[in-house]
Amino acid sequence: MNRRSLLGAGVALGAGAATTAVATPARAQTVDGADAVVDTVVVGAGLAGLAAARKLVAAGKKVLVLEARDRVGGRVHDIRLANGGTIERGGQFTGPTQTRLQALADELGVKTFTGYNTGESIYYTADGTAIRYTGALPPMDNDSYQALGQAIYQLDTLASTVPVDTPWAAPKAEELDGQTFASWIEGNVTNADAKTILHLMSNGALSAESRDISLLWILSYIAVSGNETNPGNLTRLISTLGGARDSRFVGGPYQIATKMAAALGSKVVLKTPVRRIVQSGGSALVVADNLAVSASSVVVALPPTLAGRIVYSPALPATRDQLTQRFPLSSIGKAIAVYDKPFWRDAGLNGQVAALTGTTRSTFDNSPPDGSYGALLAFLDGDQMRAVEDKSDATVKQLILDDLTRYFGSKAATPTEFVLGRWDAEEYTRGGAPGFTPPGVLTRFGTAIRKTTGVIHWAGAETATFWNGHMEGAVRSGEQAAADILKG
Amino acid sequence: MNRRSLLGAGVALGAGAATTAVATPARAQTVDGADAVVDTVVVGAGLAGLAAARKLVAAGKKVLVLEARDRVGGRVHDIRLANGGTIERGGQFTGPTQTRLQALADELGVKTFTGYNTGESIYYTADGTAIRYTGALPPMDNDSYQALGQAIYQLDTLASTVPVDTPWAAPKAEELDGQTFASWIEGNVTNADAKTILHLMSNGALSAESRDISLLWILSYIAVSGNETNPGNLTRLISTLGGARDSRFVGGPYQIATKMAAALGSKVVLKTPVRRIVQSGGSALVVADNLAVSASSVVVALPPTLAGRIVYSPALPATRDQLTQRFPLSSIGKAIAVYDKPFWRDAGLNGQVAALTGTTRSTFDNSPPDGSYGALLAFLDGDQMRAVEDKSDATVKQLILDDLTRYFGSKAATPTEFVLGRWDAEEYTRGGAPGFTPPGVLTRFGTAIRKTTGVIHWAGAETATFWNGHMEGAVRSGEQAAADILKG
Repeated sequence: MNRRSLLGAGVALGAGAATTAVATPARAQTVDGADAVVDTVVVGAGLAGLAAARKLVAAGKKVLVLEARDRVGGRVHDIRLANGGTIERGGQFTGPTQTRLQALADELGVKTFTGYNTGESIYYTADGTAIRYTGALPPMDNDSYQALGQAIYQLDTLASTVPVDTPWAAPKAEELDGQTFASWIEGNVTNADAKTILHLMSNGALSAESRDISLLWILSYIAVSGNETNPGNLTRLISTLGGARDSRFVGGPYQIATKMAAALGSKVVLKTPVRRIVQSGGSALVVADNLAVSASSVVVALPPTLAGRIVYSPALPATRDQLTQRFPLSSIGKAIAVYDKPFWRDAGLNGQVAALTGTTRSTFDNSPPDGSYGALLAFLDGDQMRAVEDKSDATVKQLILDDLTRYFGSKAATPTEFVLGRWDAEEYTRGGAPGFTPPGVLTRFGTAIRKTTGVIHWAGAETATFWNGHMEGAVRSGEQAAADILKG
Repeated sequence: MNRRSLLGAGVALGAGAATTAVATPARAQTVDGADAVVDTVVVGAGLAGLAAARKLVAAGKKVLVLEARDRVGGRVHDIRLANGGTIERGGQFTGPTQTRLQALADELGVKTFTGYNTGESIYYTADGTAIRYTGALPPMDNDSYQALGQAIYQLDTLASTVPVDTPWAAPKAEELDGQTFASWIEGNVTNADAKTILHLMSNGALSAESRDISLLWILSYIAVSGNETNPGNLTRLISTLGGARDSRFVGGPYQIATKMAAALGSKVVLKTPVRRIVQSGGSALVVADNLAVSASSVVVALPPTLAGRIVYSPALPATRDQLTQRFPLSSIGKAIAVYDKPFWRDAGLNGQVAALTGTTRSTFDNSPPDGSYGALLAFLDGDQMRAVEDKSDATVKQLILDDLTRYFGSKAATPTEFVLGRWDAEEYTRGGAPGFTPPGVLTRFGTAIRKTTGVIHWAGAETATFWNGHMEGAVRSGEQAAADILKG
C-alpha cells in the first residue's frame, strides 16, 4: 500500500531501463528479476480491480495491483469530516438485487442501512414553483401520470427484449441503436409533463442527457438493473426506496475498497499509473512510470475511455480501439453540505428534491444512520456539471448553497462543512459512472467490451452484465475476470 | 528526417532521464541543453502539423516537429507501385473552394487534375440489379428524385443556419444536436428510395453511418464545405465533378507532405511518439519515448481522440478531456486494384459504383492522368470496414476483388497489384477522416475544439472551420495555429 512496497514487488526502472522497456518491446524482456514476474497484473485498484485481485489471491495466484492514484477505490471514495463523520464523495448507493456487492460487504463486515425516506420530497417546476409530494414520481395530472406510466411500460417492454450480455443481439437492435433516447421520447410521448420527467430521469439517474445516449444503451442499462433471478426494470433503476438508491453503507462504501486493499497489503501499489502493456509470447510486460512487471495475464479494470489511453504493443485490434474512442464517461459532480442537524426533517422533508432548474437538480438526505448530524447530497449531473466545469470551487459551492437555500430554507446557506467532488476533472477518472454509448456503438463495437485481447482481460463497472455502471457491476466484473483467468 | 537528426535537435534521454522526465514534472526541467529548447514543438507531421511548422519557420521561429510514425503525412500517404506509378492509400481528393490546399500545392509545384468522369456510373440496388446512369445521383423515379431533392434542400437550409466556427450557436442547436442523422432521415423523409440514398451518402461521404452522427454535426460539416466567399452545401460535399472529389494530385498528395518535410529537414523527427506534455511557468516540456524538448508553445496537430491519449500535466480541463472522449474517428479502409489498362473505360464506364450491398459500395477510377495503367479505388466505409476488421488482408482482398468482378467483369479479378489501407488498424491513426461527433457533443463540448490550453494550440483537420475533416481543413488548421502563435 505504500510506495516502498513496490520495490519489493516489482522492478524500479532506472539507468535507461524505462527508455528501453518503453521503446522496444523486444528488449523489454531484459527487464526481469526475482520479483518482477507475477501471475496477474491488475491495472486499477477500483472495486473491480480489487475484487479481481482478491479472488485470484484466494486461489493462490501471485498478483500485483497497479493504481495511478494515491488511494484505492476508483470512483468510490469517502471523506472523513471534521465532525468525525464520513461522507461519500463517489459511489454510495446500493439496493435490491445487488447481490455480489452485498455478499462482499457482508464478508468484509460492512453493513448497509436504508437511506432516509421519511417525509415529503419536493418537485421544483420550471417556473420555480415548489410542490411537496410523496412517492417515487413528482406530482402531475392524471393524463400525465398515464402517459408517463405508458412510456415506462414501453421502455420496460423493449428492455425485456435486450439480452444483458449481448444487447447488440436484441431483435430490433439496429433501429434501437440508431437513435438517441431523446429522439425516442420526442417521437413516442406526446404529454409534455411525461416528456419532461423522462428527460430528467436520464439526467438524474444516468448523469447523461437523453440526447447523449443511444436508446439501445439505456434499454440495456434497464435490462441489467437486476440479477440472474430478477430481470431489470426501469423503476428499480431510478428508484430510491426499493431501487438502486435504496441503501447506503454504514461508514461508507470506501471501506469495501480499503478492506480489500488492506488484505492485499503490498500487492497494491499506489501512484503507479500504467502507461504501456507489451504482449509477447503469451505473457505481458506492464510498464508504469517507474515500474515494470511481467505477468502471464493482465486485468485492465478501467473504464473503456481510460483503458484506451494506455499504449498497447502490439496495438489493439481496430474494433477494440474504436470502442474506446466511442465510450465516454458521463459528466458528474457531487457536493455534500454538512450541518449540525438534519433540520429539513423537522419541516417534514426527506431531503429529496427533483428540480427543473438550478445547478443541482437532485438532492438526498445524506446524514448518517443515527442522524447525529445533517448532510445534504447535491448532484451535479450531465449538463449542470458541464455548465460549471470552468468555474472555481468557490463559485460552484455558492451556486449549490444558493440552490439548497432555495430548496430547504436559509439554514442551508451556512453548512459547517462542504465537500465537492468534481469527477470530470480528476485526472484518473475523467467523468462519472456510468460510461455510456452514443448511438451506433453497441451494435458495431459492443462485442469488444469483454473480449480478451491476448492475455488482457477487460473489467470495470462498464463491462458487467448486471448493474453495469454501478458498484455491483464493478465487483461482478472483477470477479468474472478472475474466474475467467482461473478457468484458463 | 532521419533518426540521427534528433540528436542534434533535442536531447536523447538516457541513464534514467526518461524516468525522471516522465514521472516528475518538477524535475523534468533538469532535462535541458543548448538544443533542447525551441520556440514551438509541433506534435504530428500530418498536413496540419507540417503546415503549421512551415509558417512558423518562415516567420523565423525555431521549430521541432515530432512524429510517431516512420513517415510524415498522417492520413495522407501514397504508395509507389511496382509498375512505376504512385497510388493514394489515404486522402486523395480536392475540389472547388479548397483554396488553401490549392495554394500550398501551387507553391510546392504539385499539380492537380480532374478525376476520370467519362462514361456511365453504375448503381447496384439491394437485390443486386445493376443500373447504369450518368450524373450525380443514382437513377430513381420522379417521386423519389423530388423527395431526395426536397431533403437536400432542407438539409442545406438547416446547414445555412449553422455558423462554421460556432456550430453550437446555431438557432436550433439543441434540437439538432439531440438526434442522429438517421433519426432525421426517418422522421422527415417518407420516400424509401430517398431514404436509402441519404443513408448511403452518410456511409460514402463521411465513412460514418447516419446512426453514428449528430444531425448538428452533419449540418456543420455541410456548412464548412466551402470557404470565406462560397458557403458550403451538401451537393459540393458529396459530389465528384465540381465537388469534394473533383480532382486529384498529379503524382499524389503525399508530395505535399514530403515537400514540406524536406524543406523543414532535421526539424522533423520521425518515430518519436509524444507521450506527455508538461506545462509550467508559461512553457512546456514535450516528452516522447526517447526525447524531451522544451518550448514556449506547442501545436498538437492530431485528431481529438489521439490527442486525448497524451498525458498532460497539469491535467486538461474537464471539458477538453471529455471532448476527446466523445470525438471518434470514422471507420475506413481503402483498397486499390491495379491493372494493365483501365479496361472498364472501353465498356463506357467511368469506374464509379454506388452499391447497396458488398464489402465495397463505392468505387472510383484511380488511374493516373494519362491512363497509362488502370486503377480502381474501392472504399470500405463505416459498417463495411467494421465487418472485416477481424479478417485477414487476404480475405479482405478477395472480398474486394469479388465485388470489383461483380461490378466490372472478370478482368477485375486479376489485378497486377493490390494495395490495402486499413486505417482503423494503424496504431497512429486509428480511423479515418473525418473525426465526427455523436449527438450531444457539439453543443456541450464544442467550445473546447480550438480553445488553447495554456501554451498548447489544437490543430488537425477536425479543428478547421472550412473543409473540416479534409486535407484543406488540415492545412487551414495548421496555418491558423501558426498565425495564432505568431500573433502571440
